[in-house]
Amino acid sequence: MGIYSKKYTFGKYKKGLRNKITDVKGVKVGHVTLDSGPIKTGVTAILPHGGNTYKEKVIAACSVLNGFGKSVGLVQIEELGTLESPIIMTNTLSVGTALTASIKYMMEENPDMGANSGATNCVVTECNDGVLNDMRGLHITEEHVIDAIKNASEDFEEGSIGAGRGMISMNLKSGIGSSSRIVQLDDEEYTIGTLVLSNTGTIKNFRICGESIGEMMYNARKANKKEEFEKGSIIIVIATDIPANDRQLKRIANRASIALGRVGSYMGHGSGDIAIAFSTSNKIYHDSEKTILNTKMLDDDKIDTIFNATVDSIEESIVSSIIHSVTTKGRNDKVIYSLKDNLSNLGMEFEI
Amino acid sequence: MGIYSKKYTFGKYKKGLRNKITDVKGVKVGHVTLDSGPIKTGVTAILPHGGNTYKEKVIAACSVLNGFGKSVGLVQIEELGTLESPIIMTNTLSVGTALTASIKYMMEENPDMGANSGATNCVVTECNDGVLNDMRGLHITEEHVIDAIKNASEDFEEGSIGAGRGMISMNLKSGIGSSSRIVQLDDEEYTIGTLVLSNTGTIKNFRICGESIGEMMYNARKANKKEEFEKGSIIIVIATDIPANDRQLKRIANRASIALGRVGSYMGHGSGDIAIAFSTSNKIYHDSEKTILNTKMLDDDKIDTIFNATVDSIEESIVSSIIHSVTTKGRNDKVIYSLKDNLSNLGMEFEI
Amino acid sequence: MGIYSKKYTFGKYKKGLRNKITDVKGVKVGHVTLDSGPIKTGVTAILPHGGNTYKEKVIAACSVLNGFGKSVGLVQIEELGTLESPIIMTNTLSVGTALTASIKYMMEENPDMGANSGATNCVVTECNDGVLNDMRGLHITEEHVIDAIKNASEDFEEGSIGAGRGMISMNLKSGIGSSSRIVQLDDEEYTIGTLVLSNTGTIKNFRICGESIGEMMYNARKANKKEEFEKGSIIIVIATDIPANDRQLKRIANRASIALGRVGSYMGHGSGDIAIAFSTSNKIYHDSEKTILNTKMLDDDKIDTIFNATVDSIEESIVSSIIHSVTTKGRNDKVIYSLKDNLSNLGMEFEI
Amino acid sequence: MGIYSKKYTFGKYKKGLRNKITDVKGVKVGHVTLDSGPIKTGVTAILPHGGNTYKEKVIAACSVLNGFGKSVGLVQIEELGTLESPIIMTNTLSVGTALTASIKYMMEENPDMGANSGATNCVVTECNDGVLNDMRGLHITEEHVIDAIKNASEDFEEGSIGAGRGMISMNLKSGIGSSSRIVQLDDEEYTIGTLVLSNTGTIKNFRICGESIGEMMYNARKANKKEEFEKGSIIIVIATDIPANDRQLKRIANRASIALGRVGSYMGHGSGDIAIAFSTSNKIYHDSEKTILNTKMLDDDKIDTIFNATVDSIEESIVSSIIHSVTTKGRNDKVIYSLKDNLSNLGMEFEI
Repeated sequence: MGIYSKKYTFGKYKKGLRNKITDVKGVKVGHVTLDSGPIKTGVTAILPHGGNTYKEKVIAACSVLNGFGKSVGLVQIEELGTLESPIIMTNTLSVGTALTASIKYMMEENPDMGANSGATNCVVTECNDGVLNDMRGLHITEEHVIDAIKNASEDFEEGSIGAGRGMISMNLKSGIGSSSRIVQLDDEEYTIGTLVLSNTGTIKNFRICGESIGEMMYNARKANKKEEFEKGSIIIVIATDIPANDRQLKRIANRASIALGRVGSYMGHGSGDIAIAFSTSNKIYHDSEKTILNTKMLDDDKIDTIFNATVDSIEESIVSSIIHSVTTKGRNDKVIYSLKDNLSNLGMEFEI
Repeated sequence: MGIYSKKYTFGKYKKGLRNKITDVKGVKVGHVTLDSGPIKTGVTAILPHGGNTYKEKVIAACSVLNGFGKSVGLVQIEELGTLESPIIMTNTLSVGTALTASIKYMMEENPDMGANSGATNCVVTECNDGVLNDMRGLHITEEHVIDAIKNASEDFEEGSIGAGRGMISMNLKSGIGSSSRIVQLDDEEYTIGTLVLSNTGTIKNFRICGESIGEMMYNARKANKKEEFEKGSIIIVIATDIPANDRQLKRIANRASIALGRVGSYMGHGSGDIAIAFSTSNKIYHDSEKTILNTKMLDDDKIDTIFNATVDSIEESIVSSIIHSVTTKGRNDKVIYSLKDNLSNLGMEFEI
Repeated sequence: MGIYSKKYTFGKYKKGLRNKITDVKGVKVGHVTLDSGPIKTGVTAILPHGGNTYKEKVIAACSVLNGFGKSVGLVQIEELGTLESPIIMTNTLSVGTALTASIKYMMEENPDMGANSGATNCVVTECNDGVLNDMRGLHITEEHVIDAIKNASEDFEEGSIGAGRGMISMNLKSGIGSSSRIVQLDDEEYTIGTLVLSNTGTIKNFRICGESIGEMMYNARKANKKEEFEKGSIIIVIATDIPANDRQLKRIANRASIALGRVGSYMGHGSGDIAIAFSTSNKIYHDSEKTILNTKMLDDDKIDTIFNATVDSIEESIVSSIIHSVTTKGRNDKVIYSLKDNLSNLGMEFEI
Repeated sequence: MGIYSKKYTFGKYKKGLRNKITDVKGVKVGHVTLDSGPIKTGVTAILPHGGNTYKEKVIAACSVLNGFGKSVGLVQIEELGTLESPIIMTNTLSVGTALTASIKYMMEENPDMGANSGATNCVVTECNDGVLNDMRGLHITEEHVIDAIKNASEDFEEGSIGAGRGMISMNLKSGIGSSSRIVQLDDEEYTIGTLVLSNTGTIKNFRICGESIGEMMYNARKANKKEEFEKGSIIIVIATDIPANDRQLKRIANRASIALGRVGSYMGHGSGDIAIAFSTSNKIYHDSEKTILNTKMLDDDKIDTIFNATVDSIEESIVSSIIHSVTTKGRNDKVIYSLKDNLSNLGMEFEI
C-alpha cells in the first residue's frame, strides 16, 4: 500500500484508493525479483491497459531530464506520441535481454508483427544497481521479463522489489515507489498515478515535504562525511485518464524535475533521469480505417492542477520507494540500510 | 496567380483554385512594399483566419531547420502548439518594429490584453535583404506592418513584393512565392497551402523538378565562377484545414528540408531556415470554459499523402518566388537579375 | 549587496566578493527604472563582457523550462551556441522596443552590421508586470534600453529595480536578485554568477532552504485563501568563467528547474521559465581567419560541483529578489507587500 | 570499392582513396551476412577507432530526421556528445540481441564496467528487412554481432551484405553504401566519410544527380502503378577527422535530409531516418584526471564546405548501396531486383 502518512501529506489533493499508479483504470504492474547472495535485481513491468498495446496504443510522451541513461524506445514515443508496449524496468546491463523478451512477447501477441505489419516499439528503462547487484552476471533472463508482464495486476508491492531490488536513493535503500492523486476537471474526477524506479540522490540533501531529514542524518554521522555526488538514475512513469495530448503529457513529464528538486536531487551528471507519461483516454488503433479521428483534448489553461498533483505524487512516490525498502546486503557484502535502520543506527527516531 | 506550368508540375496532386496559400479557407495575405532607390524592402502578413486570432487560436508548430535566424515567437508555439497572431515577415533589422506594431495591433483588438489578460505571442519572421536594401536605414515603420495586416486578402501577388522586395535566391531575384495542393482523406477534400519568403541558395545547385537549370546557367557564365555559399534564409509557412495536431504539424514542417534539397539548397550555415505550419481545423478558444475539448485528429498512418503534397507545394512556392520576381537595382546600384533576364543575358531560353 | 544571511546559507560553496553575477570577471549589469504612479517597470541589461559582443561572442546556451514566454533570440543561441549581444530584460509588451533599441545599439557599435556583414542576434527576455504596471502604456522607450546598457557596471542594485520594478513572486514584491559561487577545478578557482528576473510562484509553496515560510504566512492569513496558480515567469541568467561548451552550459541551465522546485515553484503553465547560461572563457571572434580554433573544454565527469553551485546560487538569487524588494503600490492602487511588510502585517517575525 | 562513375560525380569535392567511410583514419567496418533461403539479414559494425571506445570516446551527435525507428543509444549521445561503442546495424527485431552482444563485448574489453565503473552506452541501429527476410525468426545471434565487430577492417564490401542483406530502397535491392570526400581547411586536408544502411524511398521519385531515372523506370512499367509510400528506414553514419564539436556534428547530421531530398525521399512516415555523426579528432578519455581539457574546435563560419561535402557523400552512399546490390529472392519467394536487372527487365540501358 502507498504511504498514508499523518505527518507528510505531499500536497493537498485527494489520493486514490490504493495510492498507486494502478488507481488509473486499466494500468497494471508486475514484478519479478531476483534475490540470492550477490544477485539483487529484478524486473518491473507497467502495462498501460489490459489489452493488446500494439493494436490499441495510448498517447504518450517522454522528458529526458538528464540523458545519461540507456533507456530504449524513447525516440519513437517522441515522434509518434504513442506508447504501444509495456514499459519494462530493469538494470542497465539487462536492457538488451529485456528488449528481446519484450519483442518476443509482442510477436506472440501479434502474429503479423514483423511479417506483414511493422514492428512494435518496445520501451525498456533502466537504472544501474551495480553497487548491490552482480550486474555483470546478467542474471535477468527473457523469462523473467515475460513473467513480470504476465504477473502484472492492480495490486503490487513497493520498496526493494522487482527492478528496485538493488537500487539506492539518498544513500538509503530504495526501489519502487508509487502514489496517485484525484483531480476534478469540469465536475468529473480524473486520476493521476505515478511510479518511480528510484536510484538517485545523496543523503545530505534529502528532504521530505521540505524537512531536511537527510541533513540531520548526515550531521549525526560520525564518519563518512566526504562530498558525494549523485551517481544513480531515476525512471518516473506518469499515468492518467485525463485526455492530455502528447504535447501536454510532455509538459506534465517535464515537471518531474520539480519533484526531484523538492526531495533534494539536483539531477546529477551520472543520473539518467527520465520521465514517461501516458494517457489511457484516447486510444490510437493500429488498424484504424479512418483518417480523421475524434478525440478529446485538455485545455492547456487548466493544466496547473495536473502539474501540481503530478509533482506531489512523484515526490511521494520517491519517498515511498525509500519508506518501503529494507536493509539489504548485496555484492561484496555491501550493506545499504533502510531509512528506518539508518535512523536507528544514528540514534534518531522518525515518525512518518 | 501561382505557376501553372506545362513543363513543370511539381508532383501529381491537384492544385487549388488560386494555387496559393489562400486556397486554405480563411487564410489571408497582405503586403506593403517599399521601393525607392536603395530602399527595397517591405512587410508581408499572413492571417490564419479572419477573426481575432488571440481569442481563436489555431493549432501550430514550427521546425527550425537551421537556426541562424532572428524570428520571434517560436518558443511559445513550441510549448503551447498554438498560433495566436498574424505571421509577419520583414527584413532582419525591422523585426523589433514589426513586433511592436504587432503588439499594438493585438492590443487594439483585445482591450484586456496585458491588463487583465495575458499578452499575445506575436510571431515575426525575417530574412536579410541587406544586399539590395538599405537595411540599416530601418525604413519599415509600425504603420507599414499594420497596413500589411489590414491589406490582407485572399488575392495577393507573388514575386519581388512585400517582405520579398529585396530578397535573392539562387543568385536570382526572388521574394514571395506560394502554391497549394488538394488532397483526399476519407473521401473529403482538404487543402494544403504554402508560402515562402525565399532568400536562399546559390545558382550552381538550382534545380527545377530535378532539371539542373542552375548548373546550366552557371556553366554559361563567362566570369564570376568562384565558390559561393548560401548566405540568405528562407521562411516557409504551411497552412492547412486538415485536423493535424501540433506534433503532426511539426512532422509536416520538418519535411520542408526535402523541398530545399530538391531545389538545390543545402541549408547553408548562414541561412535561417524556418518552417511554421498551422491548421485552421481545430480552434482553441482563449476563454474556453470547458477543460476537456472535443477535437479532430489525423491518424499518423495516413500522413504520407500530406508529406508529399506539402513538399511539392513548397518546392513550387520557391520556384514561384523566382519566376514572379523582376530584375532589381538596389543599394549601391547592385543589380540582381530575374530568372528570365539572367537566362536572356546568357543567351539561353527557358520555357516554364 | 547580495544576501549574507546567517540563517540561510544556500549550500556550502563559497560566495563571491559581491555575491552577485558581476563576480564573474567582465560581466556588468545596468538598470533603468520607471516609477511614477501606475508606471512601475524598467529595463535591466546584462553585458557578458566590456567589449564588442558582436565581434567577440561568448559561448552560450538556453533552456526553455516552460515556453509560455516571448523572449527573443533563443533560436540562434541554440543553433550556434553563442551569445553576441547584451541580454535585455523588460516587460512583455516592451520586447519590440527593446529589440529595436538593441539592434540600434549594435549597429552603432558595428558600422558594417546589416550592410556588409550579417546582423546581430539580439537577446531580449521578459516577464509580465501587468498587475502593478500600466504595461499597455508601453512606457519603455529605446533610450531607456540604451541607457540600461550604458549604465552597466559591476555594482548594481537588487530588488524592485530595473526590469524588476513591477514584478511579483510568491505573491510578494520581487524583482531582480543575484548571487554567486566560487568553485575549485584542477586547483584553480572559477566563478559562477546568477541573476534572476523573478515573477513567479505562489505564497503557499514558498520555501527558503526547505523551511516552509510561505505556508506559515498563508496559514496566518485571515482571508484570501482560495487556490492560486502561478501566473508569472522567471528569467534566469547564469554566467561563468568555467570553459563549459554550449552543450554543458545547456546542462547547467537545465538545472534551474531544481532551484525552482526548492523555492516552491512548479513551473506553472502561465509562467515563461527560461534560463540562459554563458561562459566568458572561450571567445568566438566574428572575423576569425582560422577555421580550427584552440579551445578549452570542461570534462563532463566533473560537472556535478558546477550543477550544485549553480542551483544554490539560483535559489539564493530568487530569495534575494524578494528580500531586497519593497512594498509597492501600482496600477489601480494595487499594493504588493514586501516579505518584511507581509510578515509584519501577519504579526510574524522573520530573521534572515 | 565505392562508385567511381564517369557520369555521376555527386558534387565537386575530391573523393578519398577508397571512397568509403574508412578513408577517415581509424574507422573500421565489419559485416556478418546471413543468406539462406528466407533468411536474408546480417550485422554491420562501424568502429570509430581501433582502440577501446569506452576508454577513449569520440565526440558525436545524432539527428532524428524521422523518429519512427527503434535505434538504441541516441539519448546519451544527445546528452553527453560522445560515442563510446561501435555502431551496430541490424534488423529491427534483432536490436535486443545486438544490444546484449554489444554489452558483453564492452564488458570483456572493460573488466570494471558495470562493477566499479558505469556502463557503456551501446549504440544499435536498425531497419526493417521483413519483406525479404524471415525477421520473426530472430536469426541474428550474439556471436554474429561480436564477429561483425571483430571482422571490422578498412576494406569492406558494399551492397546487399551485412545488415544490408535484406534491405530495399526505391523498390530496388539495396543495402550498405559508402563514400567519402576530402576537404581543405586552413591548408590542411580533412576527410569526411559516410555509410548508409538504406531501406527507404519509392522508385517513382528516385533521382541520381537530378536525373529522374526512377520516373523513367516507373513509366516504363506495364503494371504495378498504384501509389506507393515509403515504408523503410535509413541509417546514415557520418565520420570525420575534422574537430567539429557535438553541436556542429549535429548541424552536419541535420543535412542528411538534404541528401534524402536529392535522391527522391520525402522522409516517409514509416521510415525511421536517423543520422549519427562522429569526429575522431578530439578524444574524451574515460578516466581523465584533468577537469579542463584542451580541444580543437571548428569555426562555424567555415562549416559550409563540410555541409556540402557531407551531403554529396551521403547522396553517393545511397546510390552506391543500390548500385552494389544484387537481385535477391527472399521470404515467400519475394524477388527484389537490382537496379541493373530492373532496367534490363524494362528494356532500358543504364550507364553509371
